[in-house]
Amino acid sequence: MKRISSYLGGAWQAGEGHTATLVNPATTEALAEVGTAGGLGEALHWARTVGGPNLRALTWQQRGEILGTLAKRLHGAREELIAIAVANGGNTRGDAKFDIDGAIGVLAGYASINASLPATTGHLVDGESVPLHKGSKLRAQHVLTPRLGAAIHVNAFNFPAWGMVGKLAVALAAGVPVVSKPATSTALLAWRIAEIMLESGVLPAGAFQLLLGPAGDLLDHVGRQDVVAFTGSADTGALIRGHRRVVATNARVNIEADSLNAVVIGPDVQPGSELFDLVVKDCVIELTQKAGQKCTATRRILVPTALLGDLRDAIVDRLQAIAAKTGDPANDENRMGPLSSAAQQRDARAGILALSSHTSRVVGDPERKTFAGVADGVGYFIEPILLEATAAAALDPAAPFHHHEVFGPVATLLPYDGSVEAAASIVAAGQGSLVGTVYADDREFTARASVALAPSLGRLVLASEKIAAASLAPGCVFPVANHGGPGRAGDGGELGGKTGLEFYLQRTTLQGGAAELARLVGTE
Amino acid sequence: MKRISSYLGGAWQAGEGHTATLVNPATTEALAEVGTAGGLGEALHWARTVGGPNLRALTWQQRGEILGTLAKRLHGAREELIAIAVANGGNTRGDAKFDIDGAIGVLAGYASINASLPATTGHLVDGESVPLHKGSKLRAQHVLTPRLGAAIHVNAFNFPAWGMVGKLAVALAAGVPVVSKPATSTALLAWRIAEIMLESGVLPAGAFQLLLGPAGDLLDHVGRQDVVAFTGSADTGALIRGHRRVVATNARVNIEADSLNAVVIGPDVQPGSELFDLVVKDCVIELTQKAGQKCTATRRILVPTALLGDLRDAIVDRLQAIAAKTGDPANDENRMGPLSSAAQQRDARAGILALSSHTSRVVGDPERKTFAGVADGVGYFIEPILLEATAAAALDPAAPFHHHEVFGPVATLLPYDGSVEAAASIVAAGQGSLVGTVYADDREFTARASVALAPSLGRLVLASEKIAAASLAPGCVFPVANHGGPGRAGDGGELGGKTGLEFYLQRTTLQGGAAELARLVGTE
Repeated sequence: MKRISSYLGGAWQAGEGHTATLVNPATTEALAEVGTAGGLGEALHWARTVGGPNLRALTWQQRGEILGTLAKRLHGAREELIAIAVANGGNTRGDAKFDIDGAIGVLAGYASINASLPATTGHLVDGESVPLHKGSKLRAQHVLTPRLGAAIHVNAFNFPAWGMVGKLAVALAAGVPVVSKPATSTALLAWRIAEIMLESGVLPAGAFQLLLGPAGDLLDHVGRQDVVAFTGSADTGALIRGHRRVVATNARVNIEADSLNAVVIGPDVQPGSELFDLVVKDCVIELTQKAGQKCTATRRILVPTALLGDLRDAIVDRLQAIAAKTGDPANDENRMGPLSSAAQQRDARAGILALSSHTSRVVGDPERKTFAGVADGVGYFIEPILLEATAAAALDPAAPFHHHEVFGPVATLLPYDGSVEAAASIVAAGQGSLVGTVYADDREFTARASVALAPSLGRLVLASEKIAAASLAPGCVFPVANHGGPGRAGDGGELGGKTGLEFYLQRTTLQGGAAELARLVGTE
Repeated sequence: MKRISSYLGGAWQAGEGHTATLVNPATTEALAEVGTAGGLGEALHWARTVGGPNLRALTWQQRGEILGTLAKRLHGAREELIAIAVANGGNTRGDAKFDIDGAIGVLAGYASINASLPATTGHLVDGESVPLHKGSKLRAQHVLTPRLGAAIHVNAFNFPAWGMVGKLAVALAAGVPVVSKPATSTALLAWRIAEIMLESGVLPAGAFQLLLGPAGDLLDHVGRQDVVAFTGSADTGALIRGHRRVVATNARVNIEADSLNAVVIGPDVQPGSELFDLVVKDCVIELTQKAGQKCTATRRILVPTALLGDLRDAIVDRLQAIAAKTGDPANDENRMGPLSSAAQQRDARAGILALSSHTSRVVGDPERKTFAGVADGVGYFIEPILLEATAAAALDPAAPFHHHEVFGPVATLLPYDGSVEAAASIVAAGQGSLVGTVYADDREFTARASVALAPSLGRLVLASEKIAAASLAPGCVFPVANHGGPGRAGDGGELGGKTGLEFYLQRTTLQGGAAELARLVGTE
């Protein structure tokens, strides 16, 4: 069987033993195997002592140029990468493009951001200088400089391209070397992307390493200037955040974890309107894209009681059409593929069962065995499932749909009274989410909701009839927009333009005379 | 004995039992006692459900006005507060003013910052909106809104006024209610300040609570929208950061902990220059102010080998003069008081012993028993101590003066070769500090040092002959300047102007049409 290797300390390393087999989740065909890599402390040391100095010797703009080149190389290999994502990820061609183009988009986005940064290796200026106190000749000028440590990236199985490359782009833009650990089950795509990036020759030595298989003792080697960025389950996030060595060093941690993303349909939305159609379209995309395996997928649909019947019918129609075309994604006719692994299928079924105590099932059979293009019972498929709660259950913060994320093609309709207060309370019951959406033309409703919902969300999409034609489903993440949510979602923040760099930078006040500060930061 | 009370859930609460006696550390006279308060979960609930809504109902500007009023009230009680700080804190009058005026300064500083913020209860706009992607009609606009939880503040014994009020000012400015726990040994000043602030009548119900004595099960009640800000030892900081419930909720944590602050004297500084005199003055202030009990005090003095003799002699002269006037701070003749408790005296002596393996003692006797105005052996005094390492030891990252903070009037001379590389390496051996200083007129040296040192520091003071007359000793913290340091120092960041508010706010991307976003954030 094909064996894929880690890239550590400047060399490809096949690793010891047989740790895992990567399969096609539609056919269960074995695709590749991985072993267990060692020398993780040495890998971090190489990053800090070789990769960091190499990256910091480049200007902010030069680091941006590297990202631009990497974007071009990945774009050049796009068809090959799509085929890998279809085979190992259970992705339809559309799903695969979403992941791969997302990765290229972050590289291009930060290439563009860094092009606007200084053509020097010095400080990044943060705001303007201000007097230290009233009447003082001394001033304070904040600056940002690259941390001296390594960035440890631990990514989720659902976006082997976007997840790895998105984190990498920001770290390299900031001047911090990366050790990246993809999730094992879908690592074939991450591995091939790593190979292409390393073969490009534009990455300085030590700037990027790839760890396949288990993380082993990686975190035992965390240092005081290191950062750890993780995307995955809340349970694993807590293990990282509470890790003895991470706590002892005050290493910086960013977590993107469980998120019960909600959409709020305003009381003024009318069946048949363009905005209503947008709601239906977005809900169906979020439910079925990547078979619902997106941290930003919509899990809770808040619908005014009066609109419940119309919305339910419209969504069911669409879901049934997709259910009929759920199957092997290698066939372009099929509109939804399988979950990425047997474990994910098992977890999703258990989650649907957990939600059944407070919901009724509107459409979809979690035990369905027959899917297009594969033998009965083969592959990790689950057809689209729509659940529905009562208005009373929706208001219960203890209801499982507020805290149990089913990571698959599953969402719950939550009827509510159409008030901002009820919507904010239901959204907040999720205890922090990556993204929320308000669909409304009533400006007063949108304005009040935007203030009431914001503390629970990392991103809030505002959709109205006027902008419906241009609107995008809420689950898409953009380099210029914050990605992360409070509370359950990990209290993280990635991307978001220049602010995204700050996770990798130290903010320092320079305190001194006005002329000296201006000279130092190049504003003289 | 006078018993001082917690203020929790809207009532003063004397607490159970006798938990601790507060003393005068110069005379060991008992001043007050505290008990153990209960109902901490209820206190946090009151903050979240009453304090938060009350604060968020005020505009950004109105919250600033409250801070302005509190500043005036504390200023009006200044003499009374100074007397308490002298009695319970071991502060000289100058030390007491430093603490109390620092507190008033942060209130006034954030009153001024908030006066420049919106006269609304809505979002705080963060930057300008940008297109979501090239050619998109949709834009991303970042906004900041108050978190819905409570702020838990745990403060250190050395600044009962500045520590408590500084954290409080920023939280209230941001619209987040506070439960504040002062260190017990010096809590008399914090308690009296709390009483004055509550009596002012300007604090909305639930906005501020005071917890005296042990923290008990406070952290077991942390919620997902809460924040915890701690100043104190690295060990306690790790207990908070690694606390099961804190980790499980992703509650936000800010830590200011151990810091081996360094000053770097440039190779061009000449004996007899104004800049040399500033070095001496600053080093002595940092060594003796508050008897060296400042997290920002200078612990490591990097001096070019050629300047070592002159600098040592000048500092020793000044320290001997202060040693002769170390005693009961109630007498204004005395220039340095005791440490704040028997435990601090014990720890400081143990620390000096730990450093003795790699240093020689230049001046000061840690076991001295006779001090001005008190009987022999009474009070927790330690006279100023100057240690000195060899140039070889200074370069050893394992040397104890790089990692063991002696929290008293103690600093170590570290000779070095005058190069930026050596200076950066020695400063970095501290593994992250709150503040550092460069004294130099050589602009090239300063420029290179400012980039090389910044990743290890939260604040970098740049002093030169030209600005010497206006310069301030590095240990003073300003509301407009970042306070916090990477790594060992906790990787925190407090104050720093408007950025300081962000710890208490959720950053959210609003994603929508240009006109709608402009309308929502008031830039239309």
